[in-house]
Amino acid sequence: MEYNFSRKLAELKPSAIREIFKSLTDPEIISFAAGNPAPESFPVDELAKISADIFANNSTAALQYSITEGYGPLREAVAVRQKAKFNIGTAGDSTLIVSGGQQGIELACKVFCNEGDTIICENPSFIGSLNSFRSNGINVVGVELEADGINIRELDETLKQNPRTKLLYVIPTFQNPAGITTSIEKRREILRLAKKYNVVILEDNPYGELRFRGEDVPTLKSMDTEGRVIYCSSFSKILSAGMRVGFVIANEQIISKMAVGKQGEDVHTNIFFQMLCHRYMTECDIDAHIEDIRSIYRHKCDLMLDCIERYVPRDIVTFTRPEGGLFIWGTVKDCDDVTPIVQRLIAKKVAVVPGSAFNCDTSKKSSSFRLNYSTPSDEQIIEGVKRLGSVFQELK
Amino acid sequence: MEYNFSRKLAELKPSAIREIFKSLTDPEIISFAAGNPAPESFPVDELAKISADIFANNSTAALQYSITEGYGPLREAVAVRQKAKFNIGTAGDSTLIVSGGQQGIELACKVFCNEGDTIICENPSFIGSLNSFRSNGINVVGVELEADGINIRELDETLKQNPRTKLLYVIPTFQNPAGITTSIEKRREILRLAKKYNVVILEDNPYGELRFRGEDVPTLKSMDTEGRVIYCSSFSKILSAGMRVGFVIANEQIISKMAVGKQGEDVHTNIFFQMLCHRYMTECDIDAHIEDIRSIYRHKCDLMLDCIERYVPRDIVTFTRPEGGLFIWGTVKDCDDVTPIVQRLIAKKVAVVPGSAFNCDTSKKSSSFRLNYSTPSDEQIIEGVKRLGSVFQELK
Repeated sequence: MEYNFSRKLAELKPSAIREIFKSLTDPEIISFAAGNPAPESFPVDELAKISADIFANNSTAALQYSITEGYGPLREAVAVRQKAKFNIGTAGDSTLIVSGGQQGIELACKVFCNEGDTIICENPSFIGSLNSFRSNGINVVGVELEADGINIRELDETLKQNPRTKLLYVIPTFQNPAGITTSIEKRREILRLAKKYNVVILEDNPYGELRFRGEDVPTLKSMDTEGRVIYCSSFSKILSAGMRVGFVIANEQIISKMAVGKQGEDVHTNIFFQMLCHRYMTECDIDAHIEDIRSIYRHKCDLMLDCIERYVPRDIVTFTRPEGGLFIWGTVKDCDDVTPIVQRLIAKKVAVVPGSAFNCDTSKKSSSFRLNYSTPSDEQIIEGVKRLGSVFQELK
Repeated sequence: MEYNFSRKLAELKPSAIREIFKSLTDPEIISFAAGNPAPESFPVDELAKISADIFANNSTAALQYSITEGYGPLREAVAVRQKAKFNIGTAGDSTLIVSGGQQGIELACKVFCNEGDTIICENPSFIGSLNSFRSNGINVVGVELEADGINIRELDETLKQNPRTKLLYVIPTFQNPAGITTSIEKRREILRLAKKYNVVILEDNPYGELRFRGEDVPTLKSMDTEGRVIYCSSFSKILSAGMRVGFVIANEQIISKMAVGKQGEDVHTNIFFQMLCHRYMTECDIDAHIEDIRSIYRHKCDLMLDCIERYVPRDIVTFTRPEGGLFIWGTVKDCDDVTPIVQRLIAKKVAVVPGSAFNCDTSKKSSSFRLNYSTPSDEQIIEGVKRLGSVFQELK
């Protein structure tokens, strides 16, 4: 039979990144296309030990239905840590445990947007969130991302021209894909404009703990005095991405609506792993563990930047120098469309993600591409950047 | 600040069952209000053993990002078992692993319905699904559930009068809340009408394995020759409800769209527990385990029915006699609204769920209530039904 799918899903394609992954079956390809945390960042021994103890002493609670808002002790531990580390959370706020940061993003959209409403995003932005918005029937509108954050003048204009804007979605710290951190000045401007046009800010901060250079810039949420910011983060880059445990901190009215939405999506997040997160946070030294992860990524990022310096002709391609996170963003000079270059890179057995995958307007091309350094080994970084460099040498 | 929530979430309240749970903090209350599997149905020792082995030998894959469609070996094992046991799945079908059966229901809605479209449901029906539809902006329309399934004449009329109907949602086997199993004749009629009005059937079958009396009735999906049925089920009532692992079997075009929707909701289901499910299915005797669960529920259901026979005056309240599943449905004669009786039961320290919680039209009252026998202990069943009986004796 022929299916009559909903308008929001009828035209939506799986993400371009997933399609690239499918072409990566060739074991000789070195992939800089992923966004996976380094496997050595998972504290396997501790998780195994706590897991065995939960099965031995608390199995019924860990395997039975639980409440939608999340495991109470984990909600509390998250709230306490976020307050202490990042000054996040006020008296009117509450915490919701979600099935990965992605679910927090999606629920914020569901709770605030009707079909046909607008969400303004940095351009480029994280493809997972863009597709999540699209799959809820949202009009995604991009505003240029500059070296110090979103273009404020263009943001003002775009807010003015899109009166159905309900949310402003930003990744202010170590942005995916561009690796850029928004300046404190621009953060203040973002808050001012959100207030001026009465839109809610959705702050996505999955990489905030992964700073390996420079000083922390305050989160938007920590500067928010009126409950305008929804803060989403997760344990994916710290403990395990595959367990799908994240959290949202926002005004309790918003959290209460998001919990109703979450109940209709998956009832609650895997309770066993919620208990595992809580016990890891309270029984192990999570700060020391995060410091180890930062060292891993500082090393990998520096290695990739050093190799770029050595092998890639910088007169035709420039790169961001991230202070944290997982990604470097390359931009080719005098280039309308990076696609043919990405194809030549694949032919040379090195994979990157073309910037067009992260465009808010999917019909537009891009002169940029994303490199990931957290997933490949040191040897792969060296050899992969060599191959990258040789393709750009040929282009000179 | 004041929040301007989406139309679909603005008026939606948390489920009445959750509110009842919150009133159950009194430890003296015996609750027949839950829908939890019996804790003794979780194969704790086997899960603990496999879990330790995954941590020891396959931890990177079990903690890293995975693919949205689900863990390949689990998808395969589910497809093979469902085909062998229930003749589910044709050449054009595919399997999607979801974060509990609830996510399958929600994704089907997202993939087929625009805001304002209609889903026709049995009345009463499972409140979790009704609220999931409502939180997607759906018009939920109920059709009376009779002792042998949905009222076919009324279904025909309702389909005729609601041209924006995209899905027909049914729980044909051991229905929640009513415990009713739809006859084979009515299943054929449901398929006929779905074809006549060109709507897709969403078959929810979380309890199908829990038959403890009588003969299996074929699933709608097994009778479907044209890819019209989406089949949702889960491991919640067999291995663990708290792990949130379920599955959908449907035409691959539908599964492909649902996977796009799922990617925007939670990227993928907890991969560790997907691997655990797969290994349990292939290394342990899942059929023997399910036989054990059936014995537990046969015993508990019979005990509750025996106590009802002994303590409850049958001239003023009647009960369904389920052949499987978790619920008994009581209906009070000559009663417009069971709410005052439910309040008297709470005062007597026994909790049930009033039927109004399961109404498609939330403004309507109900003369029925739901009893759960899977969660309480034998002692609680005996004492709780005694209390129930004493309230009804007072009403005579």
